[in-house]
Amino acid sequence: MALAWHLSSRPQGRPGPEHFDLRELGARPLAEDEVRVRNGWLSLDPAMRIRMNADTDGYQPSFPIGEPLTGGGVGEVIESRSAKFAPGDKVQHMVGWRDESVGPDTAFTKLPDYPVPDQYYLHHMGVIGFTAYVGLVKEAQPKAGETLFVSAAGGATGSAVVQIGKILGMRVVGSAGGVEKCAMVRELGADAVIDYKAPGTMIDKLAAAAPEGVDVYFDNVGGDHLDAALALANMHARFSISGMVGAYNGMAQGMELHHLMRVVYRRISIKGFIGRDNIANYADFRRQMSEWIASGQVKSRETVRDGLEAMPAAFAEMFDGRVSGKMLVRL
Amino acid sequence: MALAWHLSSRPQGRPGPEHFDLRELGARPLAEDEVRVRNGWLSLDPAMRIRMNADTDGYQPSFPIGEPLTGGGVGEVIESRSAKFAPGDKVQHMVGWRDESVGPDTAFTKLPDYPVPDQYYLHHMGVIGFTAYVGLVKEAQPKAGETLFVSAAGGATGSAVVQIGKILGMRVVGSAGGVEKCAMVRELGADAVIDYKAPGTMIDKLAAAAPEGVDVYFDNVGGDHLDAALALANMHARFSISGMVGAYNGMAQGMELHHLMRVVYRRISIKGFIGRDNIANYADFRRQMSEWIASGQVKSRETVRDGLEAMPAAFAEMFDGRVSGKMLVRL
Repeated sequence: MALAWHLSSRPQGRPGPEHFDLRELGARPLAEDEVRVRNGWLSLDPAMRIRMNADTDGYQPSFPIGEPLTGGGVGEVIESRSAKFAPGDKVQHMVGWRDESVGPDTAFTKLPDYPVPDQYYLHHMGVIGFTAYVGLVKEAQPKAGETLFVSAAGGATGSAVVQIGKILGMRVVGSAGGVEKCAMVRELGADAVIDYKAPGTMIDKLAAAAPEGVDVYFDNVGGDHLDAALALANMHARFSISGMVGAYNGMAQGMELHHLMRVVYRRISIKGFIGRDNIANYADFRRQMSEWIASGQVKSRETVRDGLEAMPAAFAEMFDGRVSGKMLVRL
Repeated sequence: MALAWHLSSRPQGRPGPEHFDLRELGARPLAEDEVRVRNGWLSLDPAMRIRMNADTDGYQPSFPIGEPLTGGGVGEVIESRSAKFAPGDKVQHMVGWRDESVGPDTAFTKLPDYPVPDQYYLHHMGVIGFTAYVGLVKEAQPKAGETLFVSAAGGATGSAVVQIGKILGMRVVGSAGGVEKCAMVRELGADAVIDYKAPGTMIDKLAAAAPEGVDVYFDNVGGDHLDAALALANMHARFSISGMVGAYNGMAQGMELHHLMRVVYRRISIKGFIGRDNIANYADFRRQMSEWIASGQVKSRETVRDGLEAMPAAFAEMFDGRVSGKMLVRL
């Protein structure tokens, strides 16, 4: 009997268990060209929170109330009426938040043969790693020797950005919350780490960590991190804006910036981007990333919770700033 | 006897007469290669306010207290010990805020032969027109049929941007303060005009004036104008940030933005720029602009005050938002 998490009401602010319902999906035989997949891993992303709002401002469609949620997953085909898949095939898809995913074969993609664990396709070998790659390499055009500042450097995307920055020969400054996450960011190779939860202003901390200023800023956070990056930006600095997790739970809330005028003084360029806009480069990216993983130049950090029941609590946890690396649920 | 305005103290907030002193400059004979110019027109720019702060954050050097101020001017050579200039030559320079300018010949440039009034070299045919041109044409890469939003559209730079936008076939929305300035912006060719002083929010007003959204935003203002442009931006919108006049008088003051996350949702690119970074294209620009002026496609709007004594009051006036076009002092 297949079970799926449904969105029962729209969170205002932080999401909690009261916004989710675990309900049975009606069992049905496969239609032609459909496949049934038993999921092994499900993905949780902070940006899913945006889709829980009634108005997503065009980001991605809003999740309908009373319907099953969706998201990334990897699993194994257990039944197929498609010529493209056979039982036993490993696949990835966007029909997550459930133990079994059923749908047309177009909704599933076979995992490539790279020698990496299956769940890596939900982070470094997937859209998250690709987001890190696109935002840093393509959008920001970094040069060896430049200083890269990464916010949420202990998170899924940020931890990939830190490591790619080091591979490119940059000096990398990462920010993360708490001693433990900061130690993890340093282990990933960051030259300096800022604990944003420690006393002091972000600007003072960034000035100390990046004495030569910031050439590239990879933003997952917005707010005081963005303002500090503006305050410390060097001439012709490039800012790649991937997300602003601080804004997801209260989108109407304002963000106060004191140093925006420096975009003129320092000719800063700020660009919002989304990995999937560059999907033509996805295959090349995966080959490159698999090599970095194989050589040990990119390491993965995961936070794993077990069982479908764990989904809502694991999702809420991500907004406390204590989750290291990629949040995954293992079934 | 040459007179010059000196900065007597640093304004906090709005500049007033108490911050300026009109004092004699010691008369001295010309050294070799020097020229003496009697000024006919002096330029006043809001951005001069930045240089009156002790810390200009690298924008341009701070004006020293007790020293003569500088700025744009045009005039006539009345004495020359340079082989490059003869009495009667019309020149422009950056040794303004005074009736006579003396300096090495490298500080002066002969006015070209274009059939425009001398003072145009202080606005449309000078750095201001060039700023409009660079920010719109080079930085924002506009296309015919796109919607252009210009803040401070009744000002020196904005009025040039409006007209260049129309020449490029764009739909132009300008914002200005008050019925009179709005009428002027419409006369310059804007398709829609927003009175930012009228009741209602900037977002509502911009939504009404730009029903198809904003593709290019030319910002002279920051603050609620920038936030509204973010809120109404179309996919792949380009923002050229020329200045943020609202920030000049209180640079430490924050700017609250509610819609910055849309840089990701709409893949917006925000670039700060300064005209003089592109000085290699300056001659081409002047030829082009002179043709637009000759054909009547670009019209100039000036606010003229008479006499050197008028400088401080004319400068302060610019921060009231009531000045139309380029503020000039005629000697």
